[in-house]
Amino acid sequence: MQTHKIHLLAQSVRRLLRRSAFEHVANLLSKLRPGDISHIMLELGELQQRRVFSLLIKKDKDLAGQTLTGMGLDPAIALLAHFSAEEAAAVLQELESDDAAQFISALPEDRAAAILDLMATEESAEVQGLLEHEAETAGRIMTPNVLAFQEVVTVGEAIHTIQNAEDLEMAFYVYVVDERSHLVGIVSLRGLLMVPPSTPLRKIMTTDILSVRTDTDQEEVARQVALYDLLAIPVVDEENKLVGVITVDDVIDVIKEEATEDIFYMAGVESDDRIYTPPRKSVRKRLPWLLINLVTALMAATIVAFYEPTIAKFSYLAVFLPVVAGMGGNSGTQTLTVIVRGLALGEVTWKSSRAALGKELAVALTNGVVLGLLCGAVAFAWKGSFELGFVLGGALIINILVAGVIGTLIPLFLIKLNVDPAVASSIILTTFTDMVGFLSFLGLATYFLTVVSSS
Amino acid sequence: MQTHKIHLLAQSVRRLLRRSAFEHVANLLSKLRPGDISHIMLELGELQQRRVFSLLIKKDKDLAGQTLTGMGLDPAIALLAHFSAEEAAAVLQELESDDAAQFISALPEDRAAAILDLMATEESAEVQGLLEHEAETAGRIMTPNVLAFQEVVTVGEAIHTIQNAEDLEMAFYVYVVDERSHLVGIVSLRGLLMVPPSTPLRKIMTTDILSVRTDTDQEEVARQVALYDLLAIPVVDEENKLVGVITVDDVIDVIKEEATEDIFYMAGVESDDRIYTPPRKSVRKRLPWLLINLVTALMAATIVAFYEPTIAKFSYLAVFLPVVAGMGGNSGTQTLTVIVRGLALGEVTWKSSRAALGKELAVALTNGVVLGLLCGAVAFAWKGSFELGFVLGGALIINILVAGVIGTLIPLFLIKLNVDPAVASSIILTTFTDMVGFLSFLGLATYFLTVVSSS
Repeated sequence: MQTHKIHLLAQSVRRLLRRSAFEHVANLLSKLRPGDISHIMLELGELQQRRVFSLLIKKDKDLAGQTLTGMGLDPAIALLAHFSAEEAAAVLQELESDDAAQFISALPEDRAAAILDLMATEESAEVQGLLEHEAETAGRIMTPNVLAFQEVVTVGEAIHTIQNAEDLEMAFYVYVVDERSHLVGIVSLRGLLMVPPSTPLRKIMTTDILSVRTDTDQEEVARQVALYDLLAIPVVDEENKLVGVITVDDVIDVIKEEATEDIFYMAGVESDDRIYTPPRKSVRKRLPWLLINLVTALMAATIVAFYEPTIAKFSYLAVFLPVVAGMGGNSGTQTLTVIVRGLALGEVTWKSSRAALGKELAVALTNGVVLGLLCGAVAFAWKGSFELGFVLGGALIINILVAGVIGTLIPLFLIKLNVDPAVASSIILTTFTDMVGFLSFLGLATYFLTVVSSS
Repeated sequence: MQTHKIHLLAQSVRRLLRRSAFEHVANLLSKLRPGDISHIMLELGELQQRRVFSLLIKKDKDLAGQTLTGMGLDPAIALLAHFSAEEAAAVLQELESDDAAQFISALPEDRAAAILDLMATEESAEVQGLLEHEAETAGRIMTPNVLAFQEVVTVGEAIHTIQNAEDLEMAFYVYVVDERSHLVGIVSLRGLLMVPPSTPLRKIMTTDILSVRTDTDQEEVARQVALYDLLAIPVVDEENKLVGVITVDDVIDVIKEEATEDIFYMAGVESDDRIYTPPRKSVRKRLPWLLINLVTALMAATIVAFYEPTIAKFSYLAVFLPVVAGMGGNSGTQTLTVIVRGLALGEVTWKSSRAALGKELAVALTNGVVLGLLCGAVAFAWKGSFELGFVLGGALIINILVAGVIGTLIPLFLIKLNVDPAVASSIILTTFTDMVGFLSFLGLATYFLTVVSSS
C-alpha cells in the first residue's frame, strides 16, 4: 500500500479512537495486511498504539504478532513494555520462532524468563534453542522448522507431506538427510514437478550443497544468499546435521541491519541506538565516542597552541583555521566513504586498492587546486595580502591531498588488521586532517609572514 | 564459499596465469559457482581479469555473463570496456534482460547502440523495451519473462507448461490474466500441488493482488517486497496489464544500492561514484559539494572575523575554536544519523518525532555538560584562567545542545519539504554548529574576558 494511503488510514484510526469507536477500528484493521497495520501503528501516538494493540490482541493474536514484527524491533519492544507478561507471551508464541527469539533477547532478563515460562511449551523450547546460539549468527536467525526427508522417500510422498504441512508458506526447497540427520541433498519445489511421483529423492537431489553453520556470522549468511541468488539456505551444526533454514526475507532484514550499522559507525553511533532508545543508554553509547573525539581535537589544538605567537601577531589567521581543517575533513570523508563502502560490498580488494589510491590522488589534487585557488583569492581580496592568499591556498592543497591519501589508506590498513573500517576510519581521518591542516597553514604562515617578511 | 578460500583460489589463478597455463585456469573456474568466480575476478589485477574473462568467453558465454553480473556494475563495466562490441554482445545476450539492460544503460550511447545491434533480435528487443522505462523504476528492473495463464487453464496444464519452460529457476508464483492480459490472480507454486490437476486456476487463485506499476520507484518496490515478505512482485502497466515480474534477488540489489546512496549522501558523495569511476567524473561529482562546504565555512569564518579584536588580545582563544565547532558537529552528526536512518527505515514518523526531540535534548544536555566540564577543566589547567574554562565549557554546552535540536529538526523539515534528508542534512547541520560554536565561544569570551575584566 502506498505511503499516502497509510497516512489517510492512520488519520481515520485516530479519529475513530477519539470517538472510542473501537469496534470500527478493529474491523478496519482486520481487512488490511499485517505490514500495513505495522505502518499505521508507527504513525500513531504512544497511547493510541497501545489502544490499537489491545484491540488486536483481543481480536487476532496472530495478526497482533505479525503487526509487531513489521514495526521493527525497537518500536515493538517499546510498545510491548506496556503489556503484561501473559499478553506478551500469548502474542509472541504465535510468531515464527526466530522472530520471537529476536524480541525475547531484546527484553530485560527477568521479563524474558517470565514470558518464556508463559509461552506454550513447544514454542518456548524452540525459542530457547535459538537463544543458545550467539547473537548475529546463523543459529540465532534460522527457523528450526525445516522440511527434511530421507533419501529413499519418493517425490509423491514428499509432495503429499508438503500438501499436509502447515506454516510452510516459504518452502521452496526440500532438504534430504541421511539416517543420522546429515544434510546430503537438496531438491527444489519445481524439481519435484519434473519427474514421476515414484522417483526417490536420491535420484533427483543435487548434492552440491550450499549451507552455513550455526556459528556463521549473519553478515556472511546474507553475503552468500545474495551472491548465489538463493531463496533459502540450510543451517547445519558442526557435524553437518541439518538444524534449520534461513529464508530470504530474514536475509533482507540482515542486509538492512548491516547497512544501518555501517552508516551509524561512520557517524560514531552504535546500531542499536535508535530514537526509541532511552536517553541514558544513548548517552552511554555516544559519550565515549565524543570523548575520543575531544582528545584528538585537543591533540590537534596543541599544534595551534605551538603557533600562538604567530596568531598573536596576525590574529586574522584564526579566521581560516576551521576552514582549512574542515575542507580537509570533508574531502577526506568523501574518499573514505567510497573506499569503506566498496570494501563492505566486496568491490574493493587489497589488490584493486593501488588503482584506487592513484585515482583518489588525482581527484584530491584537482579538488585541492580549485579550492585552494578560490579560497586564496577570497583571502587576498579580504586582506589585500598576497602572502595570506598564498599561505591559505597552499595549506588547503596540502591538506586535501593528504586527506585523499589517508582516506584511502586508513580503511585498507584497518581491514588488514581485522578491524571493521567503518568503526574507526573517520576519527583517525579527522585527527589527521585537523593536524595536517593546522600544521601546514600555521607553519607556512609563520614562515612567509614572520620569517620571510622580517628578513 | 568462504572469503579465505576465494583468496587461495585467486592466488592459484594468478600463479597459473603467470605460467600461461590457461587451460588449467579454465578448468579450475568451470568447477566453481559464478558468484565465486566473480569474487576471484575482483581479487585479480586488471590484465589478469581480462585474460580470465577471455577464457570464460571462449569456454562458456553464459558463465562469463553470470560472472560479470556478480562482479557489480562498475567493475564489470570497466572490464567490458576492453572487449569488442561483438564479444560484449555475445555475453550480454546470455544474461537476464534486466541485468543486460543495467549494463547497456551504463555504457556510452554509441557503444550501447552497437552492442544492441549485434545482440540476438529477441534479447535486444527485450532489453530495449526495458530501457524505455525511467532508471530506478520497476519497469527498468523487471524481467519481462513472466509465467502467465488464462483463468480457464487447469492446474495440470499449468504444471505441464512449467515442466517444459526454460529459464524459470525463480518461478514461485503463477500469474493469471484475463483475455486482454489484465492481471486478475496469483497462485503459488505450492498452491498448484494442493488440488487435483483438473482444477481451473480461476478456482484457486487469490485475487487480493499486490502489484507495482512500471513507473513505481525501485525503492518503493523494495519496501513492498520486504514489508510483505514476498518472493516476487508482478509489474503492470497503467492499464493493469501484466508486463513483468521483479524477483527478490533483484530487490536485494536495490536495497544494497539504496543503502549505499544514503551512506554516500551523508558524506557528500553521489552513489555512482565508485573506485572505478574515472577521476574526472569523480571530481565533477564531488567538487560542487566541497564548494558549498567552502561557502558555508567562509560564512562561519565571518563570525570569527567579527571577533578578531578579541583574538588579537587573547590569541590563545584560537586554539579552542576548532574544538568548539568540531564537538558540536560530531554530536549533531550522531543525532542526525539516528533520525535520518530512522526515517529511511520508516521507524521515525512526523508523529513520533516529538518524543525523539525530547530524547535528543536530554542526551545533548548530558553530553554537553560532561564534555563542557572536562574541556573547561583542561583549559583552566592549561592557562590557569577560570574565565577561559568557564567560557569554553559554556560554549560547548550551548553548541552541543543546539546541535541536538538542529540535528533532530533538519531531517524532519527536509522530509516535509520532500527533500531527501540524507542529501542536505549534514551540510546544514555543520553550518549551524560552526556558526553557533564560534558565536557562543567568542561572544562569551568577549564579554567575560574583555568587558567584565576591564570593568
